[in-house]
Amino acid sequence: MTNTSWTRQHVLSLADFTVAEYDTVLQTAASFKEVLSRRTKKVPTLQGQVVTNLFFEPSTRTRSSFEIAAKRLSADTLNFTASSSSLTKGETILDTAKTYLALGTDLMVIRHREAGVPQAIATEMDRLGVKVGVLNAGDGQHEHPSQALLDLFTICTLLDRDRPRLELLSGKKIAIVGDILHSRVARSNIWSLTASGAEVHLAASPTLLPHLFADYIKNEIHKNPILNRQLFLHWQIEPALEKADFVMTLRLQKERMTQHLLPSLREYHQLFGIKRDRLQLCQPHVKILHPGPVNRGVEISSDLMDDPNFSLIQEQVTSGVAVRMALLYLMGSGKA
Amino acid sequence: MTNTSWTRQHVLSLADFTVAEYDTVLQTAASFKEVLSRRTKKVPTLQGQVVTNLFFEPSTRTRSSFEIAAKRLSADTLNFTASSSSLTKGETILDTAKTYLALGTDLMVIRHREAGVPQAIATEMDRLGVKVGVLNAGDGQHEHPSQALLDLFTICTLLDRDRPRLELLSGKKIAIVGDILHSRVARSNIWSLTASGAEVHLAASPTLLPHLFADYIKNEIHKNPILNRQLFLHWQIEPALEKADFVMTLRLQKERMTQHLLPSLREYHQLFGIKRDRLQLCQPHVKILHPGPVNRGVEISSDLMDDPNFSLIQEQVTSGVAVRMALLYLMGSGKA
Amino acid sequence: MTNTSWTRQHVLSLADFTVAEYDTVLQTAASFKEVLSRRTKKVPTLQGQVVTNLFFEPSTRTRSSFEIAAKRLSADTLNFTASSSSLTKGETILDTAKTYLALGTDLMVIRHREAGVPQAIATEMDRLGVKVGVLNAGDGQHEHPSQALLDLFTICTLLDRDRPRLELLSGKKIAIVGDILHSRVARSNIWSLTASGAEVHLAASPTLLPHLFADYIKNEIHKNPILNRQLFLHWQIEPALEKADFVMTLRLQKERMTQHLLPSLREYHQLFGIKRDRLQLCQPHVKILHPGPVNRGVEISSDLMDDPNFSLIQEQVTSGVAVRMALLYLMGSGKA
Repeated sequence: MTNTSWTRQHVLSLADFTVAEYDTVLQTAASFKEVLSRRTKKVPTLQGQVVTNLFFEPSTRTRSSFEIAAKRLSADTLNFTASSSSLTKGETILDTAKTYLALGTDLMVIRHREAGVPQAIATEMDRLGVKVGVLNAGDGQHEHPSQALLDLFTICTLLDRDRPRLELLSGKKIAIVGDILHSRVARSNIWSLTASGAEVHLAASPTLLPHLFADYIKNEIHKNPILNRQLFLHWQIEPALEKADFVMTLRLQKERMTQHLLPSLREYHQLFGIKRDRLQLCQPHVKILHPGPVNRGVEISSDLMDDPNFSLIQEQVTSGVAVRMALLYLMGSGKA
Repeated sequence: MTNTSWTRQHVLSLADFTVAEYDTVLQTAASFKEVLSRRTKKVPTLQGQVVTNLFFEPSTRTRSSFEIAAKRLSADTLNFTASSSSLTKGETILDTAKTYLALGTDLMVIRHREAGVPQAIATEMDRLGVKVGVLNAGDGQHEHPSQALLDLFTICTLLDRDRPRLELLSGKKIAIVGDILHSRVARSNIWSLTASGAEVHLAASPTLLPHLFADYIKNEIHKNPILNRQLFLHWQIEPALEKADFVMTLRLQKERMTQHLLPSLREYHQLFGIKRDRLQLCQPHVKILHPGPVNRGVEISSDLMDDPNFSLIQEQVTSGVAVRMALLYLMGSGKA
Repeated sequence: MTNTSWTRQHVLSLADFTVAEYDTVLQTAASFKEVLSRRTKKVPTLQGQVVTNLFFEPSTRTRSSFEIAAKRLSADTLNFTASSSSLTKGETILDTAKTYLALGTDLMVIRHREAGVPQAIATEMDRLGVKVGVLNAGDGQHEHPSQALLDLFTICTLLDRDRPRLELLSGKKIAIVGDILHSRVARSNIWSLTASGAEVHLAASPTLLPHLFADYIKNEIHKNPILNRQLFLHWQIEPALEKADFVMTLRLQKERMTQHLLPSLREYHQLFGIKRDRLQLCQPHVKILHPGPVNRGVEISSDLMDDPNFSLIQEQVTSGVAVRMALLYLMGSGKA
């Protein structure tokens, strides 16, 4: 397992990830996926190191994924969750992070409902001159890089099991459907997928993909020289699905209804749900991804979700452990 | 440690347990009890495997017992509890279980307030063709097999420390007293104890052991050819206690009062509580069991609970770790 | 690492700690601090033993500190927190502790909002004749010995990195400022610091350091022949700070305002907050301690808290892990 090309101390956003970095993550994750297929699924890589999950916003699924990834690397884990927190005692977020630093944390995995919190903590760690790595596990509506990397790994592994790499996506058509406006998962995926040379098609109702936001996204992409300009936006699902190789559907928060951003779950499913008849538009080999947890019958019909010919949803969860092992390994092994 | 006779992938109910299976659990638990008496109480048996506690209904005591059993076997553990769950996010129970499967779970320990949930999850795992073992840690008013097996182990170990086995109970009289109607502990114990050849006497008020329910239980027992027919039902405590070798008293849920199933805790203690003067009816060597946590002065008088001449309550907790190690070992080591 | 002088099974209070015991803790913590500076920060000392955190009052910070200390010693850990507890099920505290004993706990770390609970549990363990060690992690307004020991270690290590020992404090002036009346941290520190031969100056408003309480404290100190009589009480901060070598400021509970014990946080900061201009009164090398979590701008000004020339607050957290490793090691290794 080589990581000579890795110099990044924190993983906060995919906006400035290089092709070499994507490929290092994909290759390292592939090695760990092999480890996970053995009977004894552990390696001693991070023995004696401490991975702390600082989850200011609760998430059983993502926390469990990081926790098991850390344990597979033989790290010790600490879990901080907001409900049991000293935040109610008036401590600032930076002070909480510094307390966990002083307790001996080597790697911090951070989730917060506000965008920018992981970046702020990483900046503070750098200012203090400490070698702690900070990993963004979802910050507000900003980014969720490990989710996009596991989506990427899931797709690339399907295309070449032994040597998953970014260039495999070149020329593929990928649709991202749903609540683009509020989705940190979409935000991170836009960076990785446009970097790969794929054609990326976003589809949502105008309330969930407003003109102003569309202009902003396009502008961001166009500013960035390493990014491909093949980003397309649609206010209907059909043009996005047409001849798509992969469809990513996003989780819908039910509170979007009370915010008058959509009329009903049923209408949402009618307009933007992934259903078997709609798949006729896609490539015959099309595969569907969803970051979970799924509202069955809303973002995707229940039967499609369970159909292994189309759904990669379970595979994504398993990929998540390998990708998070790779990230913790790459960020942690530079310490010594 | 031999487990040649073990082929069961899931432990969901004791209704169809064979004598050979009971004896395998008892013998394996006896070996682990010896491990627990050493200074270093760990064995490497499940190194690299993941035991996930999926507790949709909270229970510190039972979860801690399974967690320490898994750690003694060198497994990694994940804890899912309903309060921190994505259930509030609209995910189905089967989807939650499949997520933990995809995260790399080898053994699932499941508690849920609805009867049948562990069975449903096990059925789904079988349908998927995966080698995950599912263990029922209490489902509604249905069963709690590991509790009944630890009760059995506690009693059999008392009768023969080195070679606990089912036949030791043949001819013994065992009373089960309390809220039979709502008790999954009673349900599981009825299977194991009637299978052993003991005389089993249930005692409760008619509200907690109604005629219809009594008929149902008798019918179930009579249908089953491997089960002994020595099950007796009483609406007073005295005939159940008379010459009893063991008395199992059940936890009383305080909400039974507001449901008008009993008048008051005081009256309950008066009518069905285990008190020193009542023990005169039993064998001189009688021992008392309770699955915990105990309402002191309700199910049992406080002084009796603390009297090591009568109470096996602490011993049951310790037996629980050995029995759960045995179950996880038997279910997990067949995987390879 | 020698611990020939250690015979104490429980650590409940510092009131009767001997100089030899303080020095054993300080020396052992110094050895563990060296371990924590290595890449692999673990020792196999408590392999196979179980450390249970019984936190009837929630505290992420202190629980995490004990948890990581236990893991560094290779112990397995169990966490019990009140919210997830069977206390709501009517079980007594002693029964909960006995359940964790029966599950195989070797060392119990106990926090409770009522003074005396750890002592009551320790007494019960002794009555049962079991070799479990009980460590008070904060009981009501009584004591918090591991916090005072980490404060002591932080100070002594600053004075002699290689050989921290109690006598280093002889003749030093130490101010303890803030809510003395309600502080278990202050209570434990008064014992250790007066035992060291330091001059200890308490400063608070009369509402937080009433005459009656002051008399009581003085009386306690005077009764104890091993304690130094150099304890001074002030109702203003200035005489306490004058030429102080160390200033300990205590956490202020915001509910003290609604209890009419102080007018406002702003006035509190004005009267008893540690601010840069006030430090002119102290020795030029003065250092500030705070048990955390800090209300920035209340007990201490925000800029001072972050100034490494004055603040030992981060250092205290790191010392906490080394000191708790020392305590668990000393209490646990006598078992065999």
